[in-house]
Amino acid sequence: MTQPLQPHVVILGGGFGGLWATRALASAPVRITLVDRTNHHLFQPLLYQVAMAGLSSPDIAAPLRHILRQQRNVTVLMDEILAIDVAAKHVNLASGRVGYDYLVVATGARHAYFGHDDWARFAPGLKNLDDARLIRRRMLEAFEHAELESDPLIRAEWLNFVIIGGGPTGVELAGTLAEIARHTLPREFRRCDPRTANVHLVEAGPRVLASMPESLSAKAKAQLARLGVSVDTGQAVTGIDERGVALGERRLDARTVLWAAGVAASRLGSQLGGETDRVGRVKVLPDLSVPGHPDVFVVGDLASVTQDGVPVPGVAPAAKQMGAYVADVIRNRLADRESPAFHYRDFGNLATVGRLAAVVDIRGLRISGALAWFFWLFAHIFFLIGFRNRIVVFIDWIWSYFTYQRNARIIIGNSKDHDS
Amino acid sequence: MTQPLQPHVVILGGGFGGLWATRALASAPVRITLVDRTNHHLFQPLLYQVAMAGLSSPDIAAPLRHILRQQRNVTVLMDEILAIDVAAKHVNLASGRVGYDYLVVATGARHAYFGHDDWARFAPGLKNLDDARLIRRRMLEAFEHAELESDPLIRAEWLNFVIIGGGPTGVELAGTLAEIARHTLPREFRRCDPRTANVHLVEAGPRVLASMPESLSAKAKAQLARLGVSVDTGQAVTGIDERGVALGERRLDARTVLWAAGVAASRLGSQLGGETDRVGRVKVLPDLSVPGHPDVFVVGDLASVTQDGVPVPGVAPAAKQMGAYVADVIRNRLADRESPAFHYRDFGNLATVGRLAAVVDIRGLRISGALAWFFWLFAHIFFLIGFRNRIVVFIDWIWSYFTYQRNARIIIGNSKDHDS
Repeated sequence: MTQPLQPHVVILGGGFGGLWATRALASAPVRITLVDRTNHHLFQPLLYQVAMAGLSSPDIAAPLRHILRQQRNVTVLMDEILAIDVAAKHVNLASGRVGYDYLVVATGARHAYFGHDDWARFAPGLKNLDDARLIRRRMLEAFEHAELESDPLIRAEWLNFVIIGGGPTGVELAGTLAEIARHTLPREFRRCDPRTANVHLVEAGPRVLASMPESLSAKAKAQLARLGVSVDTGQAVTGIDERGVALGERRLDARTVLWAAGVAASRLGSQLGGETDRVGRVKVLPDLSVPGHPDVFVVGDLASVTQDGVPVPGVAPAAKQMGAYVADVIRNRLADRESPAFHYRDFGNLATVGRLAAVVDIRGLRISGALAWFFWLFAHIFFLIGFRNRIVVFIDWIWSYFTYQRNARIIIGNSKDHDS
Repeated sequence: MTQPLQPHVVILGGGFGGLWATRALASAPVRITLVDRTNHHLFQPLLYQVAMAGLSSPDIAAPLRHILRQQRNVTVLMDEILAIDVAAKHVNLASGRVGYDYLVVATGARHAYFGHDDWARFAPGLKNLDDARLIRRRMLEAFEHAELESDPLIRAEWLNFVIIGGGPTGVELAGTLAEIARHTLPREFRRCDPRTANVHLVEAGPRVLASMPESLSAKAKAQLARLGVSVDTGQAVTGIDERGVALGERRLDARTVLWAAGVAASRLGSQLGGETDRVGRVKVLPDLSVPGHPDVFVVGDLASVTQDGVPVPGVAPAAKQMGAYVADVIRNRLADRESPAFHYRDFGNLATVGRLAAVVDIRGLRISGALAWFFWLFAHIFFLIGFRNRIVVFIDWIWSYFTYQRNARIIIGNSKDHDS
């Protein structure tokens, strides 16, 4: 099956960066091995919907080997990546060693707790489907605990939710959670009233959605307030435990705390022999290769790229562009051609807050409210991988829109289990 | 909210028996508390589809409190049932004690290993969504291991699957697994060939689908053989370990073994003061009450009921009928009326084998093949709870029918975790 004379491209990570690189090499004269620890590509922009019980996991994930089944020059391996040896030009997987001619590292980032790893237990973050299922369970169980609880003080704590981090994920989680409490659940409980739930969004910086223009941050804050979310900006978290969050002298009592604040790059970035930035991203050259290792490329959230003095953001379109670009660089190298430097094309920035509430900034065109929300909706359905997923997600959303219901309100697993 | 003068009916278990009892008491002058350890009603007849990655969990499950939101005389509690005290007339839940005037116990059955509990680790059974997700993960990971493995003997072991138990669940799992290996996966692997997978169905009795007429058992066996399943009847399992199954002197090497053989009734049955049968089911009177405790009823898989000398089978229609019947008995008691004895109406028996392959026995009308399969399909979609679920399941199935694809092929969680 393999053609031993063709160069071997090893791609680590099947997210947007790795998958787009793989696809862009479809007709190139190379053998490709794509390695991921999971069996699927995840449409991360909708992950919060799985966490908030609106979509089920398979709606936003597709097996990598299914996506790539017709690309005959790819072998997909579901395996753990143990280490990278750039001097010997090989990667150690749990199942054995794989040598490469070109290496594309696209292993992304995880959420991080700024040196407070003990907070992870109390405030789960959201990066993969396991995280989403854990958050879904905690959120749904909080209302169940409130229904069972006879002490009014403890019941109120079960109905308090704190979300830390005012970026797109934090805003999405807070807005959706407020809608669930106000519209989805009320008629279904007899002892507690979900409408009395409080959702707090805490952001250390001066405003939510800091990557947006200030006017849109203000719009998003107003939309959140209309949904009933209390937004606290300029408030740094100083402690988290199972009963709530400390903000300096102040304290928010809450049994459910979600983390949407910090990220740290994949630990593999430190094994490439180059320099890394504060959060562990690899500083790459204009062709996205690692200094001193022209055959090693880094794409996506793991790459630290600056353009016109501004860092390229860790978003899906940037990862896709980097993946496709690196594929071009490899083709050019094989044909002894030069490659132009990577250039990020920014098509715009959008974030959703809730029902009919979103903000969109497209090259200076700023819209908010219902129109922005419909724009967000169609953009996400359009980009969602897989024809079947698009139909089912679309039906789910139409259904949810008219009924306020959420289809994935199923608690699986026991909260006393290890959180898998 | 509660009306203290009305009698209190406590219903344990939100499966078919408990849910149908609850609904049939909608207009009765009672307060109802429905307790389940999960937050959802599960459409168990399609659970094998979740295990075989054809449907996602929310497709076949709906939150109990959502189903019952408009029935104002019901309080739903998601809680663990610790013990029943029929003398003091109360139930101990993890959150506290609940007294009752009438008790309906509908906590069903679990799979059981005939005294070999150590087999559970190697051969997971299928009763709830956690089980289904575990089986899905083992099945999908087996093919991934085969792709990674370089030793041809071990690779072959990863491509061998043994299913123990030739009842409806075992037949469904075996047929579907054979289809996945032959039709869904082949183009997607580069190093191993999923078409070389072997699926063995092992049954201790003389034939598969023993509850069916012999002619239909033979048809089902022929259908399984056409799909490539090896059926071994009259073979009792004598041992299971991580490398396979022992059948007396014979051995089947296989890294994936699934258990669809024995069931044992819920342990709560032994706390009702009545007699239990060999598998722990409670022997009830003709009105489904426990001898000596006229205010305690048992319905569904936990009840041992004999009609015309034949045991009433542990199937969904029987549980629903028992639940609705007990609701009538309680209404009659409240109005000082007598109740006729429970009578099970057998509307027929059906089992699916695979694509266009099923067997149906409706009051002596016996059909098999494509017609039986369409009958099975529409019956299951019709009975599936929730309008949205029906649409989505129907789309999923049309999609799968034409593409052979399966939408839920997502491995979540790590196999090294505790299997939650």
